[in-house]
Amino acid sequence: MALINENYLKLQAGYLFPEIGRRVEQFIRSNPGIKVIKMGIGDVTRPLAPSVIQAFHEGVEEMAGQETFKGYGPEQGYYFLRQLIAENDYQNKGIDISADDIFISDGSKCDTGNIQEIFSSESKIAICDPVYPVYADTTVMSGKTGSCLDNGYYEGIIYMACTKENGFIPELPVERPDLIFLCYPNNPTGTVATRDELQKWVDYAEKNRSVILYDAAYESYITEEGIPHSIYEIEKAKKLAIEFRSFSKTAGFTGTRCAFTVVPKELTAFDKLGNPCSVNSLWNRRQSTKFNGVSYPVQKAAAAVYSEAGKREVAEIISYYLGNAKIMKESLKDAGYEVYGGVNAPYIWVRTKNGMKSWDFFDKLLKEANVVGTPGSGFGPSGEGYIRFSAFAGRQSTLEAMERIKNLK
Amino acid sequence: MALINENYLKLQAGYLFPEIGRRVEQFIRSNPGIKVIKMGIGDVTRPLAPSVIQAFHEGVEEMAGQETFKGYGPEQGYYFLRQLIAENDYQNKGIDISADDIFISDGSKCDTGNIQEIFSSESKIAICDPVYPVYADTTVMSGKTGSCLDNGYYEGIIYMACTKENGFIPELPVERPDLIFLCYPNNPTGTVATRDELQKWVDYAEKNRSVILYDAAYESYITEEGIPHSIYEIEKAKKLAIEFRSFSKTAGFTGTRCAFTVVPKELTAFDKLGNPCSVNSLWNRRQSTKFNGVSYPVQKAAAAVYSEAGKREVAEIISYYLGNAKIMKESLKDAGYEVYGGVNAPYIWVRTKNGMKSWDFFDKLLKEANVVGTPGSGFGPSGEGYIRFSAFAGRQSTLEAMERIKNLK
Repeated sequence: MALINENYLKLQAGYLFPEIGRRVEQFIRSNPGIKVIKMGIGDVTRPLAPSVIQAFHEGVEEMAGQETFKGYGPEQGYYFLRQLIAENDYQNKGIDISADDIFISDGSKCDTGNIQEIFSSESKIAICDPVYPVYADTTVMSGKTGSCLDNGYYEGIIYMACTKENGFIPELPVERPDLIFLCYPNNPTGTVATRDELQKWVDYAEKNRSVILYDAAYESYITEEGIPHSIYEIEKAKKLAIEFRSFSKTAGFTGTRCAFTVVPKELTAFDKLGNPCSVNSLWNRRQSTKFNGVSYPVQKAAAAVYSEAGKREVAEIISYYLGNAKIMKESLKDAGYEVYGGVNAPYIWVRTKNGMKSWDFFDKLLKEANVVGTPGSGFGPSGEGYIRFSAFAGRQSTLEAMERIKNLK
Repeated sequence: MALINENYLKLQAGYLFPEIGRRVEQFIRSNPGIKVIKMGIGDVTRPLAPSVIQAFHEGVEEMAGQETFKGYGPEQGYYFLRQLIAENDYQNKGIDISADDIFISDGSKCDTGNIQEIFSSESKIAICDPVYPVYADTTVMSGKTGSCLDNGYYEGIIYMACTKENGFIPELPVERPDLIFLCYPNNPTGTVATRDELQKWVDYAEKNRSVILYDAAYESYITEEGIPHSIYEIEKAKKLAIEFRSFSKTAGFTGTRCAFTVVPKELTAFDKLGNPCSVNSLWNRRQSTKFNGVSYPVQKAAAAVYSEAGKREVAEIISYYLGNAKIMKESLKDAGYEVYGGVNAPYIWVRTKNGMKSWDFFDKLLKEANVVGTPGSGFGPSGEGYIRFSAFAGRQSTLEAMERIKNLK
């Protein structure tokens, strides 16, 4: 008899973003003609950069020619793209990462979700609270947890609370995790980690022989000097950390789909006898068996992000979104809100007034200001009483949304 | 301490196709100037159809415009593509499958690999022998098996031998499986299943409350009348089967990446108490959480396969490959080989002469004829003594390869 994976039944309600989508759709259906401004899901709105479009077209055109047609590509991604990433994102910044440490994929969501497969099903996972829901949900789905407790925590996950009291920077956990999810610049709080902060985590991982799963999807939004863009800026991290990066927020690829994951050849995990094993080999085997590479024209398009023109164009887009973030941060402060993030990240983390619950504020915002945010509690219990706004809307919409929020009663 | 998933250590050698790639690359490096004809990996060689290219370009162009730009799409795929599939592949053929039964993905390899996640980790899996290696390898990786035994079988998998004695059509297994992988037209043997044959499986699944995982990636190669193109042509199959289909072999998308999986809303699996649960909901949750949809321009391109011109162009490409298959089948017969498949499938399944082992024949072919096949034993123990040729090469290369094989000593 075919039995289901009952771990799925432990998951609370729907995945956060589909639930938001459902409520927004319902509101729009009941209120036709009202312009809803979406600052909920972290989705970009600016078109792809001209250089990227040109390369994308060229890639498509190659698929039309008998001599230039591409069938199956390498599951790990084309060398031309892996090499460009290694050079531009790492080597040129003094970080020794090479092309064969890099795996191209169709998204960091997929990779951060799938990465647990190569580790023991008994692994103890540490995540921040609040956190990008995929880390927690995939931990539950893979059977590493018990039920969801009354406090909103799943039994068996090590939660690291990020609150305004600790500046949204978690303490090192007392219980030792095997795998530690970290995300900087942080989604949802917009916090960044200093070099000292990351050094502390790398030392902790070394001491406990843990592996850090470092989500750096928003690194291109870092504006302040001295903030690490990569975990590998920290000594020894190559032996202890996997890094996830994406073209989604860097170059507007949320609908185009391209990302990459760095699994340095030096990184080891252990078999039950304590022998070190190459994590790069395991991930290579996983991807070779269960993945078939990214669309060739998409990889061509991603490569154009590293051309001179591409870099300039993409920097302009990021600067545009960061301009939104600045406006939002200032407007919300002026409107009397406590506001975090938005300087090195495209997210603004806002405390609701008078202790209003996140979903209540979400509904109020939707109904009265026709603005969509993401309820902080959707990211974890410590997110209760907050809402996240993303800075990815257009400038006019951003200004209008801020005006509407200012006028909220 | 971060422990690895030790199930990976049970896997035998590398995944078949990378191993072939390694040997071929080594041969080419040692023998520069020699033209190697590749009929190993089932990879297409004809360019994308003109209608597909045009739609692909249009999709890219939309990504360039502020008003037409697409960010995150639905994880399940765009409705326009799901609807086209439902109409053209099912409803117009009298099969009641609707758009919301269909999930667009970046490949059937991914889907057939990932599908087990939504079922119990204790599930008993039945696979054919020989078989597409992904079904077996992902079963091993997910921890449902013991070690690989001396006979090449993993402990805990139910193997269904397909030999020339049973016409490469397996018997119903004695031990009851929870999940049954079937693939028709078959990779690697090129066999098809008749309606009666499929009815037998559906009845068996109903009796045992099993779920059939039906891989129909090659359905568009069926030329003979009366052979089912979909498992859903069989009554009750909607309650008992998931169907995997792909644009890879139909429309040359191996490097473009688009496929779909049909999970009918009527399909149920069970919780431990025997209550029926919707498999469609589980897969939807899996895909929403661990996948982010297929590149928008790629979905636009796939949709063009269903235009009038697209259908005609794609049919021509398939006919070209089937022409190769016919040539191969006849040439190999003339050269004294026992040959199977190639009529309703792009694969020719060839028995080696004088009981030569598959890998020995692979090496001989590579070295002496400079032709690459796929060793039958790579698909399972019952494939020993066979080699698989794919019909996806160019016509000239096909003719030349056949000539070279004919002249083998």
